[in-house]
Amino acid sequence: MTTDSIRFAHRFDGISGSAIREIFKLLAVPGMISFAGGNPAASALPDEQCAELARELLLTKGKTLLQYGATEGYAPLRESLAPYLKDRFSFSCAPEEILPVTGSTQAMDLLCKALIDPGDKVVVENPTFLGNMQAIRLYQAELVPVDSDEDGVKVDELEEVFKREHPKLFYVIPTFQNPTGRTLSLPRRKKIAELAAKYGVVVAEDDPYRDLRYAGEELPSIKSFDTEGWVAFMGSFSKVISPGLRVGFLAANKTLLRKCIIGKQSSDVHTANLNQAIVDEYLRRGLLAPHVERICRSYAEQMNTMLGLLAKCGGVARYTRPQGGLFIFAELEEGMNAADLLMQCVDKGVAYVPGTHFYPFGGHENTFRLNFSMSSVEQIKAGMEKLNQVFSSVKA
Amino acid sequence: MTTDSIRFAHRFDGISGSAIREIFKLLAVPGMISFAGGNPAASALPDEQCAELARELLLTKGKTLLQYGATEGYAPLRESLAPYLKDRFSFSCAPEEILPVTGSTQAMDLLCKALIDPGDKVVVENPTFLGNMQAIRLYQAELVPVDSDEDGVKVDELEEVFKREHPKLFYVIPTFQNPTGRTLSLPRRKKIAELAAKYGVVVAEDDPYRDLRYAGEELPSIKSFDTEGWVAFMGSFSKVISPGLRVGFLAANKTLLRKCIIGKQSSDVHTANLNQAIVDEYLRRGLLAPHVERICRSYAEQMNTMLGLLAKCGGVARYTRPQGGLFIFAELEEGMNAADLLMQCVDKGVAYVPGTHFYPFGGHENTFRLNFSMSSVEQIKAGMEKLNQVFSSVKA
Repeated sequence: MTTDSIRFAHRFDGISGSAIREIFKLLAVPGMISFAGGNPAASALPDEQCAELARELLLTKGKTLLQYGATEGYAPLRESLAPYLKDRFSFSCAPEEILPVTGSTQAMDLLCKALIDPGDKVVVENPTFLGNMQAIRLYQAELVPVDSDEDGVKVDELEEVFKREHPKLFYVIPTFQNPTGRTLSLPRRKKIAELAAKYGVVVAEDDPYRDLRYAGEELPSIKSFDTEGWVAFMGSFSKVISPGLRVGFLAANKTLLRKCIIGKQSSDVHTANLNQAIVDEYLRRGLLAPHVERICRSYAEQMNTMLGLLAKCGGVARYTRPQGGLFIFAELEEGMNAADLLMQCVDKGVAYVPGTHFYPFGGHENTFRLNFSMSSVEQIKAGMEKLNQVFSSVKA
Repeated sequence: MTTDSIRFAHRFDGISGSAIREIFKLLAVPGMISFAGGNPAASALPDEQCAELARELLLTKGKTLLQYGATEGYAPLRESLAPYLKDRFSFSCAPEEILPVTGSTQAMDLLCKALIDPGDKVVVENPTFLGNMQAIRLYQAELVPVDSDEDGVKVDELEEVFKREHPKLFYVIPTFQNPTGRTLSLPRRKKIAELAAKYGVVVAEDDPYRDLRYAGEELPSIKSFDTEGWVAFMGSFSKVISPGLRVGFLAANKTLLRKCIIGKQSSDVHTANLNQAIVDEYLRRGLLAPHVERICRSYAEQMNTMLGLLAKCGGVARYTRPQGGLFIFAELEEGMNAADLLMQCVDKGVAYVPGTHFYPFGGHENTFRLNFSMSSVEQIKAGMEKLNQVFSSVKA
């Protein structure tokens, strides 16, 4: 029998892999200016610091770090995460309520593993991060989108959906959202914590961009308003230390976290100890704050350059004005199609991600997402001029 | 609403976490001699070598290693795995047919993700590795056990089961099996490759112990007899370099591997680059073979000491005589219960894992698994004497 007869699981029906990752393959051309990714700048990756930390950790604790670790995580990291969460995200939790994971993508996967049976409903923002939409779809959940405006997801609609659809999970990116760059307002954060407990819906609060703030005032997390334990908080060090290390964490009430830990036993046993220990040293030695401060100075200039040029870019009808993060979301004039225009732009040497991919049910073909962290100010100027040329010519 | 009302997914029905991991928590007592784990010896963990490799890699390739990587894996590692597989496991495959994973536990998870719908049947050896039994159960598969003898799983029974039950997957550990230490014979390896293609069953061949051979001749892998692509090969560096690094790999035909790659996008995006690069350097620089040779000298002495003492141990009716690996499987005399006796042994300061946990449907209460890699020859002598005291007193 040939392997054409392999009987695959139904969870893959209709799933063909991340569209965004296929776009990235088009971009491996020298000189391409990519506004498509969500990667940190190369200059933001602390290679020398990590080299010294890795060496020192392996020489002093190598026998522990190279041995099997606990699924529950590297104990020193859990201990240093607790005060970090209190300080940066305004909520208290015990080390036992924190699970280090292999990138926050794994946190999403474990929450779905713990909660989702086929046919269950999961509410997401419209638009939202497509990687996690795929994670949710692989659990054969039904996605229920709720629109957002300048203040983030619309909580009145959210309550209607909670009431009507009885979802198990609500996935939300409250700060400098992907793809919109928008930040959920304080009253809405409070309201979401209330609605979660009122309707019995677990909230997966995904907040990887928070430390990348270039303007405005910090807001407390949704979880800081969570009195009953319905909010599960997903954090990541991918945007502020390194994505290649694959270290994130999940903070949740003990009952929910226990299911996630059992799930993780069968996912990868535990997150690599060395990688957890490197992140622990960043927190423990106070290396994170000065590093983030340096990154932010540079990203702020890049974002402001892009925003200034968007104002003058032909064909662009409107765009978001984020106070931080990695992304700006823009809309072309009525009738223009950002998905169709991508290939023209790529031919000119500039790329973005068509916004349609971020909407659970597609549509919104005139939208697109721009990333500014991967490009220098000069590249941003050159790339925006190319976009201007393509969009202006189509408009005319 | 309190979180007592959280609606968990049905995949957790009847699953309470790894029994073996609960036993390990009992063992955190100073002076305890543990024959329970499956960890490498501390002396087998190359901390200084890893420290220098990590530093050098981060200083020379840090900007690449700390950035996002491809889900498909770190390209240099895929390239060095292909000749390694040819040399060590006797099968040819292209780098594109190899997926580095976050420990071979993830390979098992991804194969189940790709193939298993609730109610599907998965055949396993009776007994088998309990960690992967849990992984399979979390996909709500039905486990179908097939007995084994001194030559490994009984292939006549296996064919009957393939014919009758139409399983999607057969999970097998061919070399120095966990828990039995037995090695599947050459004719049976050939037969399994044939049966897989004849009945359309994917074989998950899990071979993490192969390099730990202390006697006898190497055998080619089941996959080396696989002409159609039905065998998926799971490898690990946990037993020969470091479990804490979490690097394993899956080699499979491209159609099956593609599903696993899509599944991995949502599991953890990619395996940490630094960890993949460290393993790559072990292969590329020829560091693995001399390291393994050194480990084997020591483990051989430990195993032979334990086997010699088992021959004189009261209450022990029979035991396996492995040619390598980490485990010996033993049987107490009729009517004795290894699960019940464990607490008496722990009180005396020695531990093992009751064999019943390795049987999908339990039973076999007189069996137990002994590990020899974690204990020195002196500890093995002392621990075996304690076992002898407990077992002899019960027998008498």
